[in-house]
Amino acid sequence: MFRQIISRSIEGATRASGRSNTKASWSATCIGDLLNAAITPSATGAACVCTTTADRMSVSPPECLKMPINVPSKLLMGPGPSNSPLRVHYAMMKPLLGHLHPEFCKIMDDVKEGLRYVFQTNARVVCCVSGTGHAGMETTMTNLLEPGDVILVAQNGIWGERAADMARRHEADVRVIEKPAGEVFSLEELDSALAKHKPAVLFMVQGESSTGALQPIEGVGPLCRKYGTLLAVDTVASLGGVPFYMDAWDVDLVYTGTQKVISAPPSMAPIAFNERAMTKVNARKVPVRSFYEDITWLANYWGCDDMPRRYHHTAPISSVYALREALSIVCEEGLESLWSRHSECAQMLHRGIKDIGLQMFIEDPSKRAPTVNTIKVPEGLDWMKVVKYFMSKYMVEISGGLGPSAGKVWRVGLMGYNCTPENVDLVLKIMKEALEDAKKPTSQL
Amino acid sequence: MFRQIISRSIEGATRASGRSNTKASWSATCIGDLLNAAITPSATGAACVCTTTADRMSVSPPECLKMPINVPSKLLMGPGPSNSPLRVHYAMMKPLLGHLHPEFCKIMDDVKEGLRYVFQTNARVVCCVSGTGHAGMETTMTNLLEPGDVILVAQNGIWGERAADMARRHEADVRVIEKPAGEVFSLEELDSALAKHKPAVLFMVQGESSTGALQPIEGVGPLCRKYGTLLAVDTVASLGGVPFYMDAWDVDLVYTGTQKVISAPPSMAPIAFNERAMTKVNARKVPVRSFYEDITWLANYWGCDDMPRRYHHTAPISSVYALREALSIVCEEGLESLWSRHSECAQMLHRGIKDIGLQMFIEDPSKRAPTVNTIKVPEGLDWMKVVKYFMSKYMVEISGGLGPSAGKVWRVGLMGYNCTPENVDLVLKIMKEALEDAKKPTSQL
Repeated sequence: MFRQIISRSIEGATRASGRSNTKASWSATCIGDLLNAAITPSATGAACVCTTTADRMSVSPPECLKMPINVPSKLLMGPGPSNSPLRVHYAMMKPLLGHLHPEFCKIMDDVKEGLRYVFQTNARVVCCVSGTGHAGMETTMTNLLEPGDVILVAQNGIWGERAADMARRHEADVRVIEKPAGEVFSLEELDSALAKHKPAVLFMVQGESSTGALQPIEGVGPLCRKYGTLLAVDTVASLGGVPFYMDAWDVDLVYTGTQKVISAPPSMAPIAFNERAMTKVNARKVPVRSFYEDITWLANYWGCDDMPRRYHHTAPISSVYALREALSIVCEEGLESLWSRHSECAQMLHRGIKDIGLQMFIEDPSKRAPTVNTIKVPEGLDWMKVVKYFMSKYMVEISGGLGPSAGKVWRVGLMGYNCTPENVDLVLKIMKEALEDAKKPTSQL
Repeated sequence: MFRQIISRSIEGATRASGRSNTKASWSATCIGDLLNAAITPSATGAACVCTTTADRMSVSPPECLKMPINVPSKLLMGPGPSNSPLRVHYAMMKPLLGHLHPEFCKIMDDVKEGLRYVFQTNARVVCCVSGTGHAGMETTMTNLLEPGDVILVAQNGIWGERAADMARRHEADVRVIEKPAGEVFSLEELDSALAKHKPAVLFMVQGESSTGALQPIEGVGPLCRKYGTLLAVDTVASLGGVPFYMDAWDVDLVYTGTQKVISAPPSMAPIAFNERAMTKVNARKVPVRSFYEDITWLANYWGCDDMPRRYHHTAPISSVYALREALSIVCEEGLESLWSRHSECAQMLHRGIKDIGLQMFIEDPSKRAPTVNTIKVPEGLDWMKVVKYFMSKYMVEISGGLGPSAGKVWRVGLMGYNCTPENVDLVLKIMKEALEDAKKPTSQL
């Protein structure tokens, strides 16, 4: 059926070259299609001053693209992306479909059902923004906030900072409550901040991947309802690794990424709005700034309303296949097993880290996200040396800190496909070696 | 090296079930990590009222994800996406890398060089927005426009409409010049509109895929400079299929999609800003509304400034691989050959369409984009029947009209990998059959 044989020997290219050098122009009677004119002057008929295009080629094909792509095989044990199973990669081998073909709409529907499971919600509006995790954060801000709206950002790491930045760009009245890196907010603290600011939106991060802190979300939803506040939660670095119940916890909006526990390549930001969140969107006086991230359009394209699907934008087809496959794997294992695996592997890592004489950055084990584990860099040690040792000797990624934790910690990701006891063992073994190497006056690196 | 064997038999999941039903709570002394507590109560130590999570699971894994994904093999001869070569799909089989790993930065650099070639520019700021074509349009508006800025939109189809919509969302003063579907703007018309509105930005679409019109761009750039206007051009449906010279034509901003002539899956929006465009961005008084699409951040992440790359967002890694591979194929063939191939295949299609008694929607051949070919639906004929015939009998996609051309035309895409004489033959053969079938009082469909 497919007969797309690229003919590289089309004569036109040769014929198009070697023409006159006069500056080309076009007029109302000889508009455009310069190339047609150059190749087959008789085709357009009218006499016109159309010259070759070859003399305007100022940039040649780059040499670098003559070389094959170089992608080494690495084990990604940093804060994400994590590796994807081969099954997920294989899904992207499948041929493309049109963005509104019924088979593709069915795949979107399957993804939606899978997302309802991982978010634990029966919300109507569950879909994906066609951009990576940050696009989920931005979709939150651009839809929920109107100029002057008060948003309270619970900031204990880089994600709170970024959320505040985005909210300010949307002219919201941004109030921030802060906690030092590694700390989380208590219900009491949140209650008094809500009472003080009475925000339209409270933004929280469940897994603060810059510090490794796990923010408890349960109980926050009912507090927010008391103050007429919408609760928006970032679960990019946590979803699937720890329990999360959108409906049971009264979370009004949640988004995540694909490249962490779900173990698809980074590409989309799954997002869910409940009816309270949609009521705020539907009551907007100012249009949503972004057409691309406008949730009413997105929801329609994803079949979340009762209207026929309209063309909004072209979804990243292959990425949607990959996400479906990854969600299918998540469903096969089941969330309870997935959560247990993360918890057990993280505890195994924490024990091992203690055994080799290191300390976790967050003292209280109950405040640690199992997905991103932050380990204190001992005083006087060059953290970068250790990271380099992992990569150069074993092609294993662990990373340094980010934002408030920069220079203070190593971050070890245990996420989805990569979260296995074997990988924990490997990380511990390399860490031991790397520490010894880093202590040498002249390390091997 | 990779030892990610997913252990599905972790006991925790079993142990986590069957616990008490009391409503869970957490306090400052027993914060979160409900699962840890549920599975290994001794781990947290403190006595706390933490219950199992299993009783809160309100959504089960969906049945649909137990079925394998269903992706039929179709030949996509509509207005896009078009099919991707296997080589491009294979690139996505390669393992993931971190979004700032040196090998990945090298791949981004290669993509950048490839884009400089296809855009024919030496501009410093050439990169990709991590979203599909519409994200390119939005990145244009969000970066170039401040509230009150005058933008002139040359509107002769749906893309002009959408650009105007996006610009209004950014509180720009939107002026529109309109042409009927299928028409294009002359230099004289543009000159007088520029003189009248003196806009900060002129937005044009080179290939209006809703109508099949090819807007000549040459000559517009110098006009814009006369009025201090920036020229922004949408080349989503045209780039690679017809000549385009960003630098030689004085285009200040251009973007495209990946899923048309470039023949990668839809995923990103390649974009280029020249120094004039960047000067406007750098002089902004109001911050760019979108963090995700903020070109100064994007440009830094893509290594377009002299600063060290900072973490902005996670690029869609596999999609960047695919784009590199697709650009590599484009470079191997060369733009001149690619343009010729599109011109020749389109002419072959136009001749064939005439031979079977149909008419092209756009009469003047020089105003037709070779990439999206619009064919008039004869009076009294049901266009949908023909589209369905193509798909149900041959698994070939052609599409109906869009926006101003809805119901009036069929659209046949000839783009990149799919643009071959063999595919033109196939489309013509099916069209003949489909027309005969549609004329029957009771067609087979």
